[in-house]
Amino acid sequence: AMMEVGITPDVRLKRLRRLINSKDIVRIMESHSGLSGLIVEHTHVDVNGIVQEFDGMWASSLTDSALKGKPDIEAVDISARLSNINDLLEVTTKPIIFDGDTGGKVEHLGFTIRTLERLGVSAIIIEDKVGPKKNSLFGTDVPQEQDSIENFCEKIRVGKKSQVTDDFMIISRIESLILKAGMNDALKRAQAYIEAGADGIMIHSREKSPDEIFEFCRHFSEFERDVPLIVVPSSFDSVYEDELADAGVNMVIYANQLLRSAYPAMVETARSILTHKRSFEARDNMMSIKDIIHLIPGGK
Amino acid sequence: AMMEVGITPDVRLKRLRRLINSKDIVRIMESHSGLSGLIVEHTHVDVNGIVQEFDGMWASSLTDSALKGKPDIEAVDISARLSNINDLLEVTTKPIIFDGDTGGKVEHLGFTIRTLERLGVSAIIIEDKVGPKKNSLFGTDVPQEQDSIENFCEKIRVGKKSQVTDDFMIISRIESLILKAGMNDALKRAQAYIEAGADGIMIHSREKSPDEIFEFCRHFSEFERDVPLIVVPSSFDSVYEDELADAGVNMVIYANQLLRSAYPAMVETARSILTHKRSFEARDNMMSIKDIIHLIPGGK
Amino acid sequence: AMMEVGITPDVRLKRLRRLINSKDIVRIMESHSGLSGLIVEHTHVDVNGIVQEFDGMWASSLTDSALKGKPDIEAVDISARLSNINDLLEVTTKPIIFDGDTGGKVEHLGFTIRTLERLGVSAIIIEDKVGPKKNSLFGTDVPQEQDSIENFCEKIRVGKKSQVTDDFMIISRIESLILKAGMNDALKRAQAYIEAGADGIMIHSREKSPDEIFEFCRHFSEFERDVPLIVVPSSFDSVYEDELADAGVNMVIYANQLLRSAYPAMVETARSILTHKRSFEARDNMMSIKDIIHLIPGGK
Amino acid sequence: AMMEVGITPDVRLKRLRRLINSKDIVRIMESHSGLSGLIVEHTHVDVNGIVQEFDGMWASSLTDSALKGKPDIEAVDISARLSNINDLLEVTTKPIIFDGDTGGKVEHLGFTIRTLERLGVSAIIIEDKVGPKKNSLFGTDVPQEQDSIENFCEKIRVGKKSQVTDDFMIISRIESLILKAGMNDALKRAQAYIEAGADGIMIHSREKSPDEIFEFCRHFSEFERDVPLIVVPSSFDSVYEDELADAGVNMVIYANQLLRSAYPAMVETARSILTHKRSFEARDNMMSIKDIIHLIPGGK
Repeated sequence: AMMEVGITPDVRLKRLRRLINSKDIVRIMESHSGLSGLIVEHTHVDVNGIVQEFDGMWASSLTDSALKGKPDIEAVDISARLSNINDLLEVTTKPIIFDGDTGGKVEHLGFTIRTLERLGVSAIIIEDKVGPKKNSLFGTDVPQEQDSIENFCEKIRVGKKSQVTDDFMIISRIESLILKAGMNDALKRAQAYIEAGADGIMIHSREKSPDEIFEFCRHFSEFERDVPLIVVPSSFDSVYEDELADAGVNMVIYANQLLRSAYPAMVETARSILTHKRSFEARDNMMSIKDIIHLIPGGK
Repeated sequence: AMMEVGITPDVRLKRLRRLINSKDIVRIMESHSGLSGLIVEHTHVDVNGIVQEFDGMWASSLTDSALKGKPDIEAVDISARLSNINDLLEVTTKPIIFDGDTGGKVEHLGFTIRTLERLGVSAIIIEDKVGPKKNSLFGTDVPQEQDSIENFCEKIRVGKKSQVTDDFMIISRIESLILKAGMNDALKRAQAYIEAGADGIMIHSREKSPDEIFEFCRHFSEFERDVPLIVVPSSFDSVYEDELADAGVNMVIYANQLLRSAYPAMVETARSILTHKRSFEARDNMMSIKDIIHLIPGGK
Repeated sequence: AMMEVGITPDVRLKRLRRLINSKDIVRIMESHSGLSGLIVEHTHVDVNGIVQEFDGMWASSLTDSALKGKPDIEAVDISARLSNINDLLEVTTKPIIFDGDTGGKVEHLGFTIRTLERLGVSAIIIEDKVGPKKNSLFGTDVPQEQDSIENFCEKIRVGKKSQVTDDFMIISRIESLILKAGMNDALKRAQAYIEAGADGIMIHSREKSPDEIFEFCRHFSEFERDVPLIVVPSSFDSVYEDELADAGVNMVIYANQLLRSAYPAMVETARSILTHKRSFEARDNMMSIKDIIHLIPGGK
Repeated sequence: AMMEVGITPDVRLKRLRRLINSKDIVRIMESHSGLSGLIVEHTHVDVNGIVQEFDGMWASSLTDSALKGKPDIEAVDISARLSNINDLLEVTTKPIIFDGDTGGKVEHLGFTIRTLERLGVSAIIIEDKVGPKKNSLFGTDVPQEQDSIENFCEKIRVGKKSQVTDDFMIISRIESLILKAGMNDALKRAQAYIEAGADGIMIHSREKSPDEIFEFCRHFSEFERDVPLIVVPSSFDSVYEDELADAGVNMVIYANQLLRSAYPAMVETARSILTHKRSFEARDNMMSIKDIIHLIPGGK
């Protein structure tokens, strides 16, 4: 079902900070389309008598690009990304976090932030890399260069200065563990970024084990100045939300799982139809005709 | 893999007529995004030593709307639909057929057709209904009104007159069987539409059995003037392409199967994560991290 | 100069009602692009020691269409219109009123209104006509049909029900004088539309004299229930704002003057260059090179 | 009037090369909107019995940005620029040249070129600068850095390799004279760029006199390998097309004159209305109401 009560951009924008302040851990799910946004908006599961749902949406550059059939190299530009964001905004009410990649050129970042803010997006996450964008999960398999602390802090400062409201969040993503620059570098950057004005820190890792993440968390919890800590368990997917919350993580982002689920299901149906020369055999892999035309209310 | 050799709009536009002239039956698959377009472009299956693939893409108003989380009532307008079409055009080379619903107001149809033609789309299918658009698969469960033969023929004539090339096709979709107006009405309309200039006829049905489609085919094959016949086996999905070809059908459109496959897979993953509070248990439902970042070449 | 202090969508949306409540007459100017929006935002003139400026922007369907080189027949759809609105929103802070033509199909109106509201647009004006849209200034020279009071009231009710906030305004535009249906019809409609929930009434005329407008105003001022009255002096352009304010008009919209100024100036330069085979002679018709690159701050 | 006979993208794309081959000098005019495109398409002047008109359109990044009220620093991204291009393509038939600024990151250039080619744009002009984009007419007043010959040649090669057709042109714009790097540097670069595959050379200057342009032309004419030479007389606007043609120039681009004409005319009307509190006094500055609604055929 679509939203019955709507929301204004200002109220939506503020919702993320409220959630962070009121919940043990905020749970965000990737949404690459209005349809996947509806799934994030409405899916809920009863777990031992408690209703579980997602708290907001992650507009991933990887899945936004993949949906267009384009590589994740910032070739899908901000205007094209915003078209996806608009689709999400049209049919949902939960807060949205924008994957800002490197944030682009520093002269452009203020424009991007003010546009996101104007639309009611709650936060942007920008990563401390430079040069042609490569997906972090390639790690050191491809040449990737981290930005200097100085430059990246300047980016944060320019970004913060461009905001119209106090509520929008600029979250800094640290790539030190991805690029094997070491725990000390990661912590030093976290502290510098917070001092530069970052409203949150995302620490990323591509290890199968969450050990280095937990180590970071331990040190992070001893920082004097406190901002929310964000983790994206793509590689270390065996870790539970409760464990992350206990380690001091404030937000978990499931960064690409909906698109990763959609693609193989589509390929399977495509192959079945080519094999059998009819769609009958693909039936069990699909929602029914009846359900598809009833999926979105308002059609009848 | 993405296309290695590209295509120009003029060549792509013409490809549909060539396929119709050279193949027993042309096989078209719904594509609602660049990603699903890549699946249609590249998926092939070896069936008894013969490679089977799709011949082109169907830009469905139902799935274009559903992807945006909007109902299938033409609320997703032409500009928004074209944004999807552009995503398809960017990463594929196969011909595209546009689901034009009713074609909109007759004063607007010429603009739509010239735009499609300019982009290299091969055909538009317009249906002979009037009033607020409802999905055909609702049939007589909702009030739906068929256009008069006179009006609809005028629409076809206006459309044909607006074309810049001879190659673009306007295919008329007959709703008589859907709306229980009878076989005679369907056949009368087919003949009138062909005389008015229709480049093809799509006959639609919402029966589980293909019997009424086959009956239409028998009569259609006796028509003096010949245009391609198109069938969309959504309800009658047990029929084989070979049977349709034998009955004289020139093109089969699988009109919504990719989106119908993607949605339940996404919901399943969303529910699994909410239930288990981690994504680990959803692994088997998803392509791997490694595969998603390698899905589109050019990223590394 | 661009805005130095920004604005949020919620605050912008509310500004129109505040202006109506606090000013004798609200002055709105057509804006068809970010650039013309900047003119409306920043132009001010000192008139006898009082600074005069515009209070907001009119997103005209006529000039939005003309800017695209398309006729004013709703062939430029809502998505395309919204792209212009977004350009305005990006670089201005003043309130925006959207020219909604007929409002389109009643099933679509709610979507349009919620989108406008979400973006921070303050109001939509919809006119009580049906059938293919024709510009009002054609009057009875072309066949134009007015909607029934019943239908149009239903449109207003559906529109009001779809709103998320109380602040957004639906203004009903009465075409009775344009279509020579008489003063009584105009007044009867005004009363019915107000009862149906209209937040304002726009009365339109294509006479050179404002007499019939003033007559309408006299009667309107005797209505029990009070909503703002809006007038668009395109044909009767000799009337002064003060006269309109004295007659009880709450808002004046200059509906197309910026585009009407831009076009002949461009044609003159084009002709000069073709005539002289250099641009030198067109200099006086243009802003200087230096000014164009300094027009928008942030470039240097 | 709108085009009566249309054009396909492939035919339009090829038209630029044909014009270059058949005309003494090709005359291109800036177009920032469908409306200004119509002016370029249809304006013609009889000069001593010979009809003069423009040969094509220049999609300027300066005026595309200015129309949106944004500075000319590539903050208006490719997707936003393409939206303007699409408006031009919809209502014109003459060839279009795209102002590609620096061409962006080399990884993205291939995508841009293939998209332009697909739409039927004939050429892109890319300039040999790096770093944050600044308008060339600032010259050495702002820090601007020229790209190395090596890097820029690689950009040209990557661009040429990405094309689908042989017809699309990549024109290299040399900034040596703008940046005071000297005539020798300009000539060395011209030769290198041609060897790297450039389909044309644009030489730019911000002097009031065309002397340095003519000097470049003299040397250029002695090059062994021949490609078209393009000149943009923004600063040196007293030079005649015939003089440029005699010096060997193949194409002249009037790069910003239509927008430079539109803006002051709009400001004048805005100020007049604010001063007089009615639009009557601005009449002579505007086209008439009657003309604006008849401007684009199809409205009546």
